[in-house]
Amino acid sequence: MSNQKSTLPKGTRDFGPDKMVKRNFIFQTITAIFQKFGFLPIETPALENLSVLTGKYGDEGDQLMFKVLNSGNFLEKVSAQDMENGYKKLTSKISEKGLRYDLTVPFARFVVMNRNELVFPFKRYQIQPVWRADRPQKGRYREFYQCDADVVGTDSLLCEAEIVLMINEVLEKLGIGDFTIKVNNRKVLSAISEVIGYPGKEGDLCVAIDKLDKIGKEGVIKELEERGFALESIQKLDPIFEVEGNFAEKAAKLDAIFAASETGKKGLQELRTMMGYVEGFGLANTHLNFDITLARGLSYYTGAIFEVKVNNVQIGSISGGGRYDNLTGAFGLKGVSGVGFSFGVDRIYDVMEELQLFPAHNQTTTRVMFSHFDAEALLYTLPLLKKLRESGIKSEIYPDAGKLKKQLDYANNKQIPFVVIIGSDEISSGKLTLKNMQAGQQQQVSLEELIRIVQAG
Amino acid sequence: MSNQKSTLPKGTRDFGPDKMVKRNFIFQTITAIFQKFGFLPIETPALENLSVLTGKYGDEGDQLMFKVLNSGNFLEKVSAQDMENGYKKLTSKISEKGLRYDLTVPFARFVVMNRNELVFPFKRYQIQPVWRADRPQKGRYREFYQCDADVVGTDSLLCEAEIVLMINEVLEKLGIGDFTIKVNNRKVLSAISEVIGYPGKEGDLCVAIDKLDKIGKEGVIKELEERGFALESIQKLDPIFEVEGNFAEKAAKLDAIFAASETGKKGLQELRTMMGYVEGFGLANTHLNFDITLARGLSYYTGAIFEVKVNNVQIGSISGGGRYDNLTGAFGLKGVSGVGFSFGVDRIYDVMEELQLFPAHNQTTTRVMFSHFDAEALLYTLPLLKKLRESGIKSEIYPDAGKLKKQLDYANNKQIPFVVIIGSDEISSGKLTLKNMQAGQQQQVSLEELIRIVQAG
Repeated sequence: MSNQKSTLPKGTRDFGPDKMVKRNFIFQTITAIFQKFGFLPIETPALENLSVLTGKYGDEGDQLMFKVLNSGNFLEKVSAQDMENGYKKLTSKISEKGLRYDLTVPFARFVVMNRNELVFPFKRYQIQPVWRADRPQKGRYREFYQCDADVVGTDSLLCEAEIVLMINEVLEKLGIGDFTIKVNNRKVLSAISEVIGYPGKEGDLCVAIDKLDKIGKEGVIKELEERGFALESIQKLDPIFEVEGNFAEKAAKLDAIFAASETGKKGLQELRTMMGYVEGFGLANTHLNFDITLARGLSYYTGAIFEVKVNNVQIGSISGGGRYDNLTGAFGLKGVSGVGFSFGVDRIYDVMEELQLFPAHNQTTTRVMFSHFDAEALLYTLPLLKKLRESGIKSEIYPDAGKLKKQLDYANNKQIPFVVIIGSDEISSGKLTLKNMQAGQQQQVSLEELIRIVQAG
Repeated sequence: MSNQKSTLPKGTRDFGPDKMVKRNFIFQTITAIFQKFGFLPIETPALENLSVLTGKYGDEGDQLMFKVLNSGNFLEKVSAQDMENGYKKLTSKISEKGLRYDLTVPFARFVVMNRNELVFPFKRYQIQPVWRADRPQKGRYREFYQCDADVVGTDSLLCEAEIVLMINEVLEKLGIGDFTIKVNNRKVLSAISEVIGYPGKEGDLCVAIDKLDKIGKEGVIKELEERGFALESIQKLDPIFEVEGNFAEKAAKLDAIFAASETGKKGLQELRTMMGYVEGFGLANTHLNFDITLARGLSYYTGAIFEVKVNNVQIGSISGGGRYDNLTGAFGLKGVSGVGFSFGVDRIYDVMEELQLFPAHNQTTTRVMFSHFDAEALLYTLPLLKKLRESGIKSEIYPDAGKLKKQLDYANNKQIPFVVIIGSDEISSGKLTLKNMQAGQQQQVSLEELIRIVQAG
């Protein structure tokens, strides 16, 4: 048979051991910190009913969602007319399930389905792949992991403050020291829309502002005009966006600008409370930056908005999130406020590779390999191997008797730091020949010495 | 909107925190032991090209595979004729990707695609969900995890022996002490087919023998007759299947029966070598049972066959595997022998629930919850919370000021063992009121004492 069959679908990836070890390092760091803050894990199925997914991500999302053919004879209930109505209509006849598109909508469904058993506030994290039929490009995949933490069932701004703490701790633990957590509040954006004379139009305003990084001020002004904002109003944005200073100074200036806006005052108050909590935790450096232009297109945010950038690395945001007051409304459960955020693991991986932040030695791979040359040595090795493993040392025996070079190549390739060579000399003396693969040195040791050396090194 | 939307696809499940904690306990136990034996993790995408999956699992497998609709206008290249040729032919026109059906075929594809970078023997483990459009029933799901470990690129029987060791260690670590690892060898089954006069018909023989548990001896005889075996030949099976004693005794009797079968001798030799290695490791109890009727329908096994049953629990096998000499042949790479096995995590979970083997207290949930009643106490608590977390203690603060009962209910429900109550007395005295949720007792402690008590308890 031909090799042409062994290909991967566009935009998907295998992760071999090297990559897995690094990815797991990121996942484990994040998981440990989520748990330290009282978050518990959940998982939802990859397959969701399309009735759950459809309409939650806009038209583009509905298009990019992977849909699964009904099993068995999916044409059974399809009429000739259905076949002629085009692919969109036919889809709903032959497919009732799709692949998870993000972790937020399945989480909302989970909360609604389990609302009688869950204890609120409910703090959950979820680390699972999602699928999008996007055009693949550098850093954009069709199957990729999301890594979310949310609290639902409380509007306490302490949750926002703890998100700041978790982002700080995760990134510092990973060695990414130079980053900025941009923060804003949807109510502040609403107030801006209000004070420039377009109350309720903050959606359009946000979409345009969101592009500031990409298209510059000129571009944003043009886009706002196209979206129906009068130039005179757009010019009113200038003094707002030019507000400078630290958070307290910016907020004080905005107090004046929002004097007539209840929404604006509320937004500033929320930001002040959150900042107060962060301060109360006594962080040396919060990495926080109140960015009044931060919008993050997503329309369901109602309070805080977060976005994290690594300084001096060109990669876009590595984390983001915010508060949403009506997450579960689409599933019939009103009045459940929540706040959450997500780490972009693929981008964090790329940043860590670029900055060479992964540990040189990993804790996953074998520490000791036994090498042998005949059946007698093999049998001699087995109880030694058992002892090492009983001491908690990851160890293996090269399974075939063969040339030493081949066995050492295997160890080198797997980055195994210690090799024990068992031959007739070792069997008769009872001592083991231990080769340190980094230093290249050999020494004779007893089993107890071997265990001590490996556990120390 | 209506609640009817929030449903799960048939045969799929959510895992809430309670279940996740237990499932992770199983996954972590298995992972730690796989790594201790030198296995490294890989992951492959959920989506595979149908050209990779189709034809690898028989007709039934092809039917039960979930297929994904091509994205965009999937009807673009479909002719009117295609629409009339029935759903099977249409499927190949509108779907080119499917969901992973097991972990073995994607692993074979991975090995072939990466054969120039991998170091052989390659020892990998893989823990990921798979999807099958099977009719859901108790213990059978449409989305479920598999948990595989394989070694490819060596025919050393040491790998078989280490599989026995890993099964032993995992099940003992999980507390499942009373189990049997049934072992057989495909060559022994071939030899049986040979000596009863039907060389090469071991496939049919196995399918029938495989049902011995379900349909009894009478049933098997009937099935064999239907499959074309003469009664006279079937009767020759009796003395073979009635061979009794420990492994050495059974093997000695089979030596005589297989005197004329090279394949039979080879099979027995392989079993003896494997048993010798297991013995060489010096296990107190191997749990091994040489079962000459063990067949496990899967036709790709060429050597050892394993199956693990928990004694006195009605649940079927919880692990199984074997050696296959031609795993990667379907992808154009010949001569790569491998041996592997899989843990059935859902069944292990059920066994552990039935035998009440999960630890009463888990390591995932919050250890200390702070409760407060006003903004002042909240701000007072933040630095204490930070200190606890810096000591590595999972801790949280109930985010809302509210009735103590509500806060304690939350802690109880989340099985948080310690609650610290912060009120005006505590703020003025500098002491903390610590409530032990199991014992119900309260005491006044300093922060240092709190940390000591929690770390000890």
